[in-house]
Amino acid sequence: MNVTIDFGGTNIKIGLIRDGEMLAKISIPARSGTGLLSRLPDVEEGIRRLLGEAGTSLAACGGIGIALPGIIDGEGKTLLSIKDKYTDALGFDFAGWSQERLGLPLVVENDARAALIGETAYGAARGERDAVLVIFGTGIGTAAMIGGRVLRGKHGQAGILGGHLTTDIYGERCNCGNPGCLEAQASHWGIPLRAAKLPGYADSALAAETDWGYASVLRASEEGDAFAARLEADLLRHWSAGIVNLIHAYDPEVVILSGGLMKSAARILSPLAEMVREQAWTPWGAPRFLAAGDPETSVLLGMSYLADRHDS
Amino acid sequence: MNVTIDFGGTNIKIGLIRDGEMLAKISIPARSGTGLLSRLPDVEEGIRRLLGEAGTSLAACGGIGIALPGIIDGEGKTLLSIKDKYTDALGFDFAGWSQERLGLPLVVENDARAALIGETAYGAARGERDAVLVIFGTGIGTAAMIGGRVLRGKHGQAGILGGHLTTDIYGERCNCGNPGCLEAQASHWGIPLRAAKLPGYADSALAAETDWGYASVLRASEEGDAFAARLEADLLRHWSAGIVNLIHAYDPEVVILSGGLMKSAARILSPLAEMVREQAWTPWGAPRFLAAGDPETSVLLGMSYLADRHDS
Repeated sequence: MNVTIDFGGTNIKIGLIRDGEMLAKISIPARSGTGLLSRLPDVEEGIRRLLGEAGTSLAACGGIGIALPGIIDGEGKTLLSIKDKYTDALGFDFAGWSQERLGLPLVVENDARAALIGETAYGAARGERDAVLVIFGTGIGTAAMIGGRVLRGKHGQAGILGGHLTTDIYGERCNCGNPGCLEAQASHWGIPLRAAKLPGYADSALAAETDWGYASVLRASEEGDAFAARLEADLLRHWSAGIVNLIHAYDPEVVILSGGLMKSAARILSPLAEMVREQAWTPWGAPRFLAAGDPETSVLLGMSYLADRHDS
Repeated sequence: MNVTIDFGGTNIKIGLIRDGEMLAKISIPARSGTGLLSRLPDVEEGIRRLLGEAGTSLAACGGIGIALPGIIDGEGKTLLSIKDKYTDALGFDFAGWSQERLGLPLVVENDARAALIGETAYGAARGERDAVLVIFGTGIGTAAMIGGRVLRGKHGQAGILGGHLTTDIYGERCNCGNPGCLEAQASHWGIPLRAAKLPGYADSALAAETDWGYASVLRASEEGDAFAARLEADLLRHWSAGIVNLIHAYDPEVVILSGGLMKSAARILSPLAEMVREQAWTPWGAPRFLAAGDPETSVLLGMSYLADRHDS
């Protein structure tokens, strides 16, 4: 049994997991604008509360797994790079904190990579050995597995930067510094910035939108807004190009889609899969598409899988 | 000692190699428009001639290695997909041919993957374990190595389709079927097709060019042709985006550049590396750039490395 923590942008999820089974879970506000380190006392309190409610204690736990939305060093110890939020945690000794406060070993991993591990170990893609995962969240997180091995790379970057593969070099510059990243053109944070520059925006219902995101575009399109319909078609081009990039880069049998966009799976999954099949060069056949169950759960399950196998 | 063969579009190179040393090499015309299978009698004759001139025989050889510009199955046995040329070799039993005609085991590999193996085993990148290679040839071939393992993937596609990662989804459709591939925008075959559609083309010296390619663009730019100068700047954007895509996908320490474009390395390598360093998200530092020595030799050396280690 171990304790798993997912530092999301809005909420911090804490789960108690044994052998892929979620025994208990709580969520506390992230307040990510104020950083990560100042949240650690509340996280510790949350862990103790969760254990208490489950009628167990730290002594029964084997370790801690922490997922973060950034680049983690190759040894699973610390955070090397992150955009915008939680930057105060760069280089922080998470394992030292865990040993001191909780007396347990700790492993850190990128959240999308944790989600892929969770989905292939316990979730929708159980048993798959060649898979890519895309989380359409605030940004676009990805991870890749080849022959049963999750790609990490020399500096922890392999597989997780699929949102930072280019779809349009003449497009918006990304907050990572690269012109044309998929994430800057077609993610939750990228869409409103780009949409505001497109012709017809001022006449669209979206110009008055205050709760921007994937859902607002799809809803306005469904309600007949012409600008939103064009934007939806354009976003499908970017999303399909981004997925084709992953297929061409990593040669998967399965593409797992996750994140907020999947709340609209009924509307977009079928046309998206069709575009990908038309465009990808896969003479062996066509990768299957899977929608991940609950992305938050898959991240926590993946961290539990890693914590079970971690020596520190 | 073994015999290595590189089926290029213009010439078929045949090398006799022992422990990374090229003992002898010949080249015969490819006539690739007429297919591959009809060239096998000449290839066999070339092998016997090469061995005779080197004062040795098939009995002294351990195996054959064949490099092809296409997708090879995961077991190194046959060709799964190829564009335009040599399509008659799809599914051909190369090992059967070799056993029957030469009495030797045989391994087949993608030519860019062979070049990466040759460069890391014996060449400019000797000893590197995290590397990507780009061959700017007729098309744009790539390969990737992570932690000393060359990426192959479930269906033999991983790493070799870097020329088919997107740089501009609104750009030219590639002959692979995908809109916006780097190769369709910025390779030897892609450049003239795209250039002819760009504003100012008719007034450029390039409009009268009959020997199109990387060199003709760079030469016209150097001679003051305004259209060619704009095209060169645009091509640098595509090439750098393509390399950033590989860095983001595979997390290498070294980027090896090869192929015809490298004849102009003195002009483009420095600005290209500078653009890549500015754009790539590599908080650990910056990948080094290496220009491969002779790309033909690196392919043959890589096939020899594979033939030495192949059981069939």
